[in-house]
Amino acid sequence: MNPVSELETPAVTVLMDVMEDNIQRVQAHLSKHGIANRPHIKTHKIPALGKLQMQAGASGITCQKIGEVEVFADANVADDVLLTYNILGAAKTDRLMAVAKRLKRLAVVLDNDVVAKGLSAAAVRHQGEIPFLIECDTGMGRNGVQTPQAALDLARSAMRLRGMRFEGIMTFPLKPPGASLTNPKLSAPGSLAFFREALKIFGQAGIPVPVISGGGTPAIWTVQDYPMLTEHRAGTCIYNDVMTVASGTATWDNCAMRVRATVVSRPTETRAVFDCGTKVLTSDTYTVSGHGHVMEYPDAVIPVLSEEHGVIDLSNAKKKPQVGEVIHIVPNHCCVVSNMVDEVYGVRGGKVEATWAVAARGTVR
Amino acid sequence: MNPVSELETPAVTVLMDVMEDNIQRVQAHLSKHGIANRPHIKTHKIPALGKLQMQAGASGITCQKIGEVEVFADANVADDVLLTYNILGAAKTDRLMAVAKRLKRLAVVLDNDVVAKGLSAAAVRHQGEIPFLIECDTGMGRNGVQTPQAALDLARSAMRLRGMRFEGIMTFPLKPPGASLTNPKLSAPGSLAFFREALKIFGQAGIPVPVISGGGTPAIWTVQDYPMLTEHRAGTCIYNDVMTVASGTATWDNCAMRVRATVVSRPTETRAVFDCGTKVLTSDTYTVSGHGHVMEYPDAVIPVLSEEHGVIDLSNAKKKPQVGEVIHIVPNHCCVVSNMVDEVYGVRGGKVEATWAVAARGTVR
Repeated sequence: MNPVSELETPAVTVLMDVMEDNIQRVQAHLSKHGIANRPHIKTHKIPALGKLQMQAGASGITCQKIGEVEVFADANVADDVLLTYNILGAAKTDRLMAVAKRLKRLAVVLDNDVVAKGLSAAAVRHQGEIPFLIECDTGMGRNGVQTPQAALDLARSAMRLRGMRFEGIMTFPLKPPGASLTNPKLSAPGSLAFFREALKIFGQAGIPVPVISGGGTPAIWTVQDYPMLTEHRAGTCIYNDVMTVASGTATWDNCAMRVRATVVSRPTETRAVFDCGTKVLTSDTYTVSGHGHVMEYPDAVIPVLSEEHGVIDLSNAKKKPQVGEVIHIVPNHCCVVSNMVDEVYGVRGGKVEATWAVAARGTVR
Repeated sequence: MNPVSELETPAVTVLMDVMEDNIQRVQAHLSKHGIANRPHIKTHKIPALGKLQMQAGASGITCQKIGEVEVFADANVADDVLLTYNILGAAKTDRLMAVAKRLKRLAVVLDNDVVAKGLSAAAVRHQGEIPFLIECDTGMGRNGVQTPQAALDLARSAMRLRGMRFEGIMTFPLKPPGASLTNPKLSAPGSLAFFREALKIFGQAGIPVPVISGGGTPAIWTVQDYPMLTEHRAGTCIYNDVMTVASGTATWDNCAMRVRATVVSRPTETRAVFDCGTKVLTSDTYTVSGHGHVMEYPDAVIPVLSEEHGVIDLSNAKKKPQVGEVIHIVPNHCCVVSNMVDEVYGVRGGKVEATWAVAARGTVR
């Protein structure tokens, strides 16, 4: 095992002790409340880490694109997979049915009739059956039916289609009542009120709802406030990042992903430039200010990134780095960083213990 | 050749007629003003397109990381390469010297003594010589010496080191006088005043400055205002994007890169969601608002992207897309989109004429 200091920068590293602790804590909390843990693998995109999550007690995994399902099926990570995306078009539904045959259960979500009909046609074409959840928009302002009644109506019409099996309802993220993320003028009722009403009217219609699926990392720690939940999907929690710390649900010590970078320029007294930018850290602000947290210089801020340069403003920094110095950055959003690199390095005790190919990187389809 | 309609979405396509016209127009303008064209290949990262630029009359290419130089050297794109980055550390300077041996000229830039000394040590180790330019910060607020005098001082100290050959000065971008990008309180003198003063004091010191290198796509069309320029480096201009259009130097018809995407959800009357997000378009705002321009729905805006979802606000759109419809998005920043995908498709007359591997994708080191 080589010392981590021999890694060329920039390099995306993961502190293995911290990551293993994150996996255990999340599993313990969800288990304690009787909620199945279905980690979202889009955060790491690394089959070996999905296997660690399964070994810790996860009930299955969550994927966001068919490409991720295919890569994780190839690696035999889990035989129970939820694909939380509207799958549309014959090419994709054919791929869906092909990979479904290699798993015990591959469920999908849908929020409209066009998707339901396309899935049903594929199920008929391939003589299979597709378990599905209705995606509900409970305040995110992205995909999802807008009301519990719309969830019931869509479930009813979709379950009447050949080859379609209704399994439940899902949302992302699990949200307290409040403002919509995309339209601050609208207020959303929140996931609890939405799910309560949905379960009431599904019950009145005599339709069982075996799966009620929530999501999101900060929400892990309040799943107990949503008593109907049967499972929870979270991704970021395996690594944590500036967003998680800003949410109050993790500390810097819980942040496993650290981007090693080298200071390559000190053009002014208050400016340093390091050797990575959006091509590693991305330009995701992800609800926080700046572009990452420099562990060695906590008073420094990263106001701007170019593709290959990160600019550090040292105006309020008590000490200042030298050219050639290696720094460690906790990214704003760890999931998107995984997608930028071909390899991630697992580090323990200052040694590179594992070199993981990011096998599902770039799976945009 | 397959019809473009058979491409699974999302897919990054390039209209070949538009791209070829962009290459020719840029070359013609720079040639007309006697300025060498040194296109920045970080925009496309595709050797075949670098060859088109060379065939059109480029004098060489610009790269931003050694990994890009290596990939383009493997493909024999150009034997004259400028690497516009501070190269630091023995691992990287060894790689630099190794790839330099395969090229007629590989020049680098530097803005500090630590980098100069490291390069010199590598030149000695490998019995080579390193041509270098001094990087000047003329208003960008990133790397670069801060004054013409600092450029002269650094050039003098670096040219005294063994194996180092001073060739000139460079900046990015070529900037008119005005505010610094990173600190709006500071005003920068602009590239013209900086270069004029630098040439005066280099002349007084008796040091020839054979190369004066400018950069940036919008600045292509005003290079004639900088009479000392010997070469110009621009990347985006091969494709163009929302930033270029916003700068007033291109129209939508000049935008060659179009991201094909499918509308997968219409959750509300005013919202559509399509099947790609930051994992294709990135979250670069790049000085413009929104997250891309939808060609079919010019009144629509993309207020927010998730990793795999793009949200369209149709509040001001006269017509509205259906679920299943394919749309074409001009990205805010084309360079970063190239880095997100393994393949880009060249399209002409509705057919996929070329499938290019993005060979230098992911070259973060």
